Amino acid sequence: MTKAGHTGLLVTHLPDLRYLCGFTGSSAALAVTRRGARLFTDGRYTSQAAEEVSGAEVGIVAGSPALAAIEWLRTEPGVHSATFDPSATTVAERGRWLAALPSRLRKTFLSELSEPLVQPLRTIKDAEELAIISDAALIGCRMFEHILGVIRPGIREIDIAAELEYKARQLGAEGMSFETIVASGVRSALPHGRATTALLPRKGFLTLDFGIILNGYSSDMTRTVYLGNPTIKERDTYEAVLEAQESGVDAVRGGARCGDVDEAARCVLRKAGLADAFTHSSGHGVGLEIHEPPRIGAGQDTKLLPGMVITIEPGVYLAGQFGIRIEDMVAVTKTGGKVLTPAPKALIQL
Amino acid sequence: MTKAGHTGLLVTHLPDLRYLCGFTGSSAALAVTRRGARLFTDGRYTSQAAEEVSGAEVGIVAGSPALAAIEWLRTEPGVHSATFDPSATTVAERGRWLAALPSRLRKTFLSELSEPLVQPLRTIKDAEELAIISDAALIGCRMFEHILGVIRPGIREIDIAAELEYKARQLGAEGMSFETIVASGVRSALPHGRATTALLPRKGFLTLDFGIILNGYSSDMTRTVYLGNPTIKERDTYEAVLEAQESGVDAVRGGARCGDVDEAARCVLRKAGLADAFTHSSGHGVGLEIHEPPRIGAGQDTKLLPGMVITIEPGVYLAGQFGIRIEDMVAVTKTGGKVLTPAPKALIQL
Repeated sequence: MTKAGHTGLLVTHLPDLRYLCGFTGSSAALAVTRRGARLFTDGRYTSQAAEEVSGAEVGIVAGSPALAAIEWLRTEPGVHSATFDPSATTVAERGRWLAALPSRLRKTFLSELSEPLVQPLRTIKDAEELAIISDAALIGCRMFEHILGVIRPGIREIDIAAELEYKARQLGAEGMSFETIVASGVRSALPHGRATTALLPRKGFLTLDFGIILNGYSSDMTRTVYLGNPTIKERDTYEAVLEAQESGVDAVRGGARCGDVDEAARCVLRKAGLADAFTHSSGHGVGLEIHEPPRIGAGQDTKLLPGMVITIEPGVYLAGQFGIRIEDMVAVTKTGGKVLTPAPKALIQL
Repeated sequence: MTKAGHTGLLVTHLPDLRYLCGFTGSSAALAVTRRGARLFTDGRYTSQAAEEVSGAEVGIVAGSPALAAIEWLRTEPGVHSATFDPSATTVAERGRWLAALPSRLRKTFLSELSEPLVQPLRTIKDAEELAIISDAALIGCRMFEHILGVIRPGIREIDIAAELEYKARQLGAEGMSFETIVASGVRSALPHGRATTALLPRKGFLTLDFGIILNGYSSDMTRTVYLGNPTIKERDTYEAVLEAQESGVDAVRGGARCGDVDEAARCVLRKAGLADAFTHSSGHGVGLEIHEPPRIGAGQDTKLLPGMVITIEPGVYLAGQFGIRIEDMVAVTKTGGKVLTPAPKALIQL
């Protein structure tokens, strides 16, 4: 804060709040000065805030926590402005905040962060965070191992999702980090095919993309398996996606450009004539949110740093035919990438 | 749109998009003129958009769907501005939208909705929506019935959550509408006590608050049961919460003020000396989002209208002792309220 010249900071993005002071409730605002911090929340969270929050005093308010935080900052000595994150603040919220200020302060007191302040801290995971994320990823692998024994033609996609999610809870997950994707047969060509009542086919691909939440941190992994015997085209396409995915993982290291990591995966599919069928970026950061910076996409200049955790997940989608995606979580180290999801990737036939 | 004087509308809030044109993907923008509409999304959703979208043409774009939508509106005849929802747009997004406009249009082309346009439409559910929401609520009731046979001292809160969520999937749910709350013993005094590894006690309250998603629509219900034999104070407090909840439900009808419905529940707890222990509002709307307008809170002047679906969920929280909450979903009719969650509310002892 001091380096960036801020005297007062207003934090309202819940994952940022959790990161900074440990609070996990659904409504709060954190005011930070160079001398201290105060978390404002409502009466539903009196006990929970007392239990969870460290590094900040707690104020329980009846109205808007953000307005209370701004009011507190306004009266703290040495605070000249409340700097907020424009990417976590709606136009309507800013309007309400402005309207609540005395008119003489309306032009000066609220200021926008010109670049993210908390997110870059969150991007680099410390040892404790890496341990939690690694545990979360391993739970994902155990879920995958379990589900291999359940998959068979004729059962519904949602039953596969149910089994995965039940296993997740048994293994200690707080919940799923996003809506479980179970996409079978031609539905595997939908990159985000949520589980439906469709029955698993006798023959065809089945894509499973799922993640859990453990101590607030998300995991994310995808495997695509085959029911029956694949055609040569299906097998060749799978091998191309696998090669692209491994090439992406191999390109991960501290200092690598995100665009170069994306290209390492993408060029394999381009050579295989599948460039147009790979319709998304190669990956994203994961942590307290399921999608965080950095984005591993074409042309991205951001550099990977040790401590980042990202996904590498190229995919190929042929509408009306089939789709394939393979995704690992990878922790960035100085010299390479450590795969956190060591589940088998060679084509599994069931 | 015509009535409000808008020539071009930019919709980016995903539940609004789903409501208006059926698209369920995670990234899109809808541009609406008085002559037609166009949905912009990215390559991941080519097949899905073709399958789902009605009432709008589809444009697949490589960059930001919102920027593409603004660009399209800018070149449509008769469109003088792109009106956006300030409560669904971040300050940073608006900044990027402005920066992409030619300088001569920067002051005039983007305009903020002065009052919500899509949300009021969504608040009133039609017969088809009511049928889905009612089915979702009944699935919740069946989950509750099932879990009564599972609850016993010594099992973990997360195992209760696992069983609830597994049953939800078996009964056809697409997922849970929020993180399942399983709060036992002294933890029941946390209004939002997520399931932990805590073991259910031999004696004490157990609060279950959960909801599912069915065809995109959320359900929401809470029941509090007792393990063992309650003390007189515990039983009396339960009876007070139940009376408050039923009083709130009885106050529901088309034309009733939300503040009056809240007060109908709140005054029962006030008379019982529990006003300070009821630390939140009495309920909220439910639909494509788990929390929607209207808010059933103290002093709210909004009037209930037939077709709205709301929750009535007073609670009492005594820190370090116990907590109790009872919640139904209620469909507003001209003459009253129809409870959509007909699970037993008299105190269940297990």
